[in-house]
Amino acid sequence: MSRLRDLTALLQPRSVAIIGATPDVRRPGGRPLDFLRRYGFAGPIYPVNPRYDDIDGVRCYAKITDLPEPADMAVVVVPAPAVLQTLRDCQTAGVKALTIYTSGFRETGAEGAAMEAELIEVANQAGTLICGPNCQGVANFHDSMIANFTSALATEGIDAGPIGFVSQSGLFTGIVTAELRRRGLGLGYLISSGNESVVDFADVLAFMAEDPRIKVVAGYMEGIRDGAKLRAAAAVARRNGKPMILLKVGRSPESAAAAASHTGAMAGAYEVYQAALAQWGLIEVDSIRELFDAIEAFAVTSGIARGDKAGILTNSGGLGVFGADQVRSQGLAMATFSETTVATIQDRLPQFGSARNPIDFTLQAFTDPQAVGAHLRHMITDDDVDIGLVFFGVQLLNVDALVKEITDADALNEKPILVSWMLGEASAPRRLRDAGIPCYDDPESAIKAARRLVEHGRLAAHADAARTPSAMDGVAQRLPGAGTLSEWQARAVLRVAGIDTVWGALAATVDEAAAAAAAIDGPVVLKIESADIAHKSEAGGVALGLDDETAVREAYEQVTTSARAYAPDADITGVGVYEMISGAVELIVGISRDTAFGPVILVGMGGIMAEVMDDSALGVAPLDRPRAAAMLASLKGFPMLDGARGRPKCDTAAVVDILLALSDLALACPSIGELDINPLMVMPVGEGAKAADALITVS
Amino acid sequence: MSRLRDLTALLQPRSVAIIGATPDVRRPGGRPLDFLRRYGFAGPIYPVNPRYDDIDGVRCYAKITDLPEPADMAVVVVPAPAVLQTLRDCQTAGVKALTIYTSGFRETGAEGAAMEAELIEVANQAGTLICGPNCQGVANFHDSMIANFTSALATEGIDAGPIGFVSQSGLFTGIVTAELRRRGLGLGYLISSGNESVVDFADVLAFMAEDPRIKVVAGYMEGIRDGAKLRAAAAVARRNGKPMILLKVGRSPESAAAAASHTGAMAGAYEVYQAALAQWGLIEVDSIRELFDAIEAFAVTSGIARGDKAGILTNSGGLGVFGADQVRSQGLAMATFSETTVATIQDRLPQFGSARNPIDFTLQAFTDPQAVGAHLRHMITDDDVDIGLVFFGVQLLNVDALVKEITDADALNEKPILVSWMLGEASAPRRLRDAGIPCYDDPESAIKAARRLVEHGRLAAHADAARTPSAMDGVAQRLPGAGTLSEWQARAVLRVAGIDTVWGALAATVDEAAAAAAAIDGPVVLKIESADIAHKSEAGGVALGLDDETAVREAYEQVTTSARAYAPDADITGVGVYEMISGAVELIVGISRDTAFGPVILVGMGGIMAEVMDDSALGVAPLDRPRAAAMLASLKGFPMLDGARGRPKCDTAAVVDILLALSDLALACPSIGELDINPLMVMPVGEGAKAADALITVS
Repeated sequence: MSRLRDLTALLQPRSVAIIGATPDVRRPGGRPLDFLRRYGFAGPIYPVNPRYDDIDGVRCYAKITDLPEPADMAVVVVPAPAVLQTLRDCQTAGVKALTIYTSGFRETGAEGAAMEAELIEVANQAGTLICGPNCQGVANFHDSMIANFTSALATEGIDAGPIGFVSQSGLFTGIVTAELRRRGLGLGYLISSGNESVVDFADVLAFMAEDPRIKVVAGYMEGIRDGAKLRAAAAVARRNGKPMILLKVGRSPESAAAAASHTGAMAGAYEVYQAALAQWGLIEVDSIRELFDAIEAFAVTSGIARGDKAGILTNSGGLGVFGADQVRSQGLAMATFSETTVATIQDRLPQFGSARNPIDFTLQAFTDPQAVGAHLRHMITDDDVDIGLVFFGVQLLNVDALVKEITDADALNEKPILVSWMLGEASAPRRLRDAGIPCYDDPESAIKAARRLVEHGRLAAHADAARTPSAMDGVAQRLPGAGTLSEWQARAVLRVAGIDTVWGALAATVDEAAAAAAAIDGPVVLKIESADIAHKSEAGGVALGLDDETAVREAYEQVTTSARAYAPDADITGVGVYEMISGAVELIVGISRDTAFGPVILVGMGGIMAEVMDDSALGVAPLDRPRAAAMLASLKGFPMLDGARGRPKCDTAAVVDILLALSDLALACPSIGELDINPLMVMPVGEGAKAADALITVS
Repeated sequence: MSRLRDLTALLQPRSVAIIGATPDVRRPGGRPLDFLRRYGFAGPIYPVNPRYDDIDGVRCYAKITDLPEPADMAVVVVPAPAVLQTLRDCQTAGVKALTIYTSGFRETGAEGAAMEAELIEVANQAGTLICGPNCQGVANFHDSMIANFTSALATEGIDAGPIGFVSQSGLFTGIVTAELRRRGLGLGYLISSGNESVVDFADVLAFMAEDPRIKVVAGYMEGIRDGAKLRAAAAVARRNGKPMILLKVGRSPESAAAAASHTGAMAGAYEVYQAALAQWGLIEVDSIRELFDAIEAFAVTSGIARGDKAGILTNSGGLGVFGADQVRSQGLAMATFSETTVATIQDRLPQFGSARNPIDFTLQAFTDPQAVGAHLRHMITDDDVDIGLVFFGVQLLNVDALVKEITDADALNEKPILVSWMLGEASAPRRLRDAGIPCYDDPESAIKAARRLVEHGRLAAHADAARTPSAMDGVAQRLPGAGTLSEWQARAVLRVAGIDTVWGALAATVDEAAAAAAAIDGPVVLKIESADIAHKSEAGGVALGLDDETAVREAYEQVTTSARAYAPDADITGVGVYEMISGAVELIVGISRDTAFGPVILVGMGGIMAEVMDDSALGVAPLDRPRAAAMLASLKGFPMLDGARGRPKCDTAAVVDILLALSDLALACPSIGELDINPLMVMPVGEGAKAADALITVS
């Protein structure tokens, strides 16, 4: 696992060199000097280009080694073949960080990848930071350090503000700039991370989260290589109490392929991203619009959603009903006002209005905006309300008064108020935002943003706690060099790891099998024992429900004969004789390895449920106990374990213990590539859960 | 079932009276005269108010009976208590249709409801049309007949156009006006249907669908009372080849309650709306934004989506990857271009672009917009592409050229092209729309709209066909007056309806039971037989898996004893002895009645699947065969019937026959309030499906 990097030299440099600077401000090489000066960068700027003595009045140097002092950061805009030498020159000159715009590296194929590998090696030797190559650059607006060449900054500026953004798409930084400007929101950092040769997405997230001027950290993510660093960045955000909002694209295999061709990003499975992000308290949004809507909510309001109950106040019964639907579909709840609240609102409501949630004040915003303010104050101070939602449709008049009323109500307590201002007077949204009230084009956006405020509170409360994993003493020596373990070997590993297995005995002869069966109450199962036969059922090596000695003896001959026919070269060490458990609920649990996130723990319904629907949950190791319990409880089939329809309650605590043991096992034994327990038989409360079949692959 | 009404007098009147007209144009009574004149209504306008001789130069009449001719339609703006007499006066004067703005009827409680009931009775006696009461009025823009008092029409006009809209929320008509104007789209009809005392939502939908000037019919719906009329309206739209797009709000019980307090609308269960809308080829959207996005797609493009495969062309790799995700999450597919297409595009692409779907042309729109046009032409003519999607992020330059290129490509074939123009030059979206290209703020909207184009094609192809239902001869006489049928009675009804039941015999004594069991191969089931005991298991009246005579005799005594203890007064007519089927897949099928839609047919997974998840599908009777098959195939558990993991394929054709029989039965016997077959045992192909337990309630 790599550590998070200190990006001070890259993102808060005291001086900036531009290697390959040109006077043409429309070209990437011309933009940094123009932007740094226009936005008012306070430190020295050193253009470097042997073709110019000065650029627009600023002295230009022939070589980076000619500078009067080492620049903290150098923007590099030279052709790809010249980049490596430029890096070496920068190291000679004492430059600590490079932002490399140049394309033509890993994203173009094997040759470019080799060039990039060399770049990385040279950089790491001296601890030089590199943002890029193949990136649109970096910008820190609070320090007026603008070295991102997006056109969106050429035409108009943007205020410095509380939002830090990192993007794995260059053009997306332009979209961020234009959209935040449109909403009147300020930007703190805008980082295009490009190929992430050295500095990666997680480094930037974490650095922004540590900056006290930043309130919201957000990013556009195609893929990461090191899940552990993202986990560390998430921890930085949590420690600083800041939301970290991510749009993860490349969710399907085909769009992930498109992402790979776009930036060459490596991507693990999307399902693992989903699990990891939720687990670490990151907010994952589903679309570009939701990304900006959520950013606005966190950047603008200082309110805190303590719960999920929404109160709606609107001038349109229709918007109110639509809003109530959306509140529910977004997983929030409609508050139930106290009778006092209802009566007080009713007192001042027009004849055809409604004082219950959603409150419909009809045309009162035209005739008596103070009454609307009074309704809102009553609503937001009602004990059952956690979030206030105010929806205006086509409100053209009384904007001053309404902005004042809403702002006054917002000051009453810490509950967030979000407004949807649909198609009314155009100045209202920005005026509300300036007053600390997020304001959206329609109720859907407001409710989705409110959902994120609620989610942030929940995620922060439920983010994984530190837990000391078991060292799993004694497991490693039971693992062979590589390959698949036999059932009997796998069972031993599980038991050393603290996971119960169904009772069994290994029989080398038919008489031993009969004797073993006789010692077990009830029917038994016979399974061929061979490390060379991973799929025992396919090999005809399994016999179920054997009731008496004759059946056991017949089955012994049958499974050995079938297995020998199936795999003549297999080393068959005997036949396992196992108790057959009935009446238990069957689960599947296991370990897999993700390229980005490492060990992943799975729990899913087994048996018939597994056959017809994918009912499973993932978690990234290390798991803690609440997370393991939440994974189990998230299964659609969980009611079957939880006493649905008069069934006995199952021993879910034992399943949670097993998930934690798997997490510890995966961390302690990196050589375990895959582990499947299918089925895990879960017995009634107090009776535990036992692995009835196990497959372990060591790599 | 009521018939659809001819709304010519209401929506295409040759003359309009305004009863309660005032000179104050800010008040509802002042708006119609002002609007009718400003928008240029060609026919006579007759203000009626005894307080004025003229209003703004137009002669004002004291009474509606004073007019020189009968007005086709009268707008009524008089106090609620005066409305009934106004209706009678209008009838005397020969007025054919009324638009009643006045509130204070059903939406206010019992007293208002009584007034409204009288209004309806009087109107229906003479066949007078009423829109409202409690509505914002009607507008027909092609004929300049504007009698909707929304403020959104007071400030600015809107072009006459191809969109017909009906709303059960008054204020929502203002939102429609403002939003369509913002998009530069024209409006044909704008109807606020209010309490729908006489003219209802379906009447308006159907009338608009018949008007050749209307291309898209849409509506905001809180609830309807007569599902059959909506079905008829949907048929009108289908016959005219027009999309009918509905936003149904009040989806949850609590928001439905809010809707009821809003307009007093009656609402059936939302799940039934969902089923009915899909079944009848209506397009149901999920949010206000999707409503307008879909309307725009159908109003603007003349293209036809023959399939669901999208090609994406973009200036941003990031938008392309995001788009590929959304295409998938919206149920569309990414096209695979032919190698010729890829090679041809590649030829003219910049170095870091991508010629595969999504096509990323990077900055080429700045340098060579004609190349972008060439890419689009190659993409849209590729055989695998059904829909073209073009995403621009922050495109500020070359708008003229790009609009021309896109328009030229759109003319090449009938495939629709939709554009997302995100944060670029502001004039582009309207220019594209004017050229027949729907244009959206972001890729999400464009893709959701494209999905609706695809859905429309599918829905139109799969809308229910006419099918002559069986008259179900002989069933009615087997139904008692009211109450719950005994198992034995219910089985008889099913068999007459053509639905197989498991084999069984009715035993009046323990000896008869033993004899009946002896005649059945394999284990049997005993069930107490009594019309008075609906829940036999609860009564201890069921014994399963009886293997031999002793077990049958013991069980006979046990079920009769238990049932007598459970219900001492029940009339017990014996014990049913039934074959016990194993190895079949269990379904639940049944009939229920919805207040708005009438008979509803349900099919769901039975057994353990039913216990832990709601896996069921609904259909409104009459069903046709493809619909019944689609309901079955939509179950998550369908693979269990369809041979998943080597299971035998089940006799799904027999299940479809049973669903059709239930549909016919529900229509033929309106007295059947509820019918549940649980479980229906579905056997392997060719062996049919049999009801193992049936409950029928007659009302």
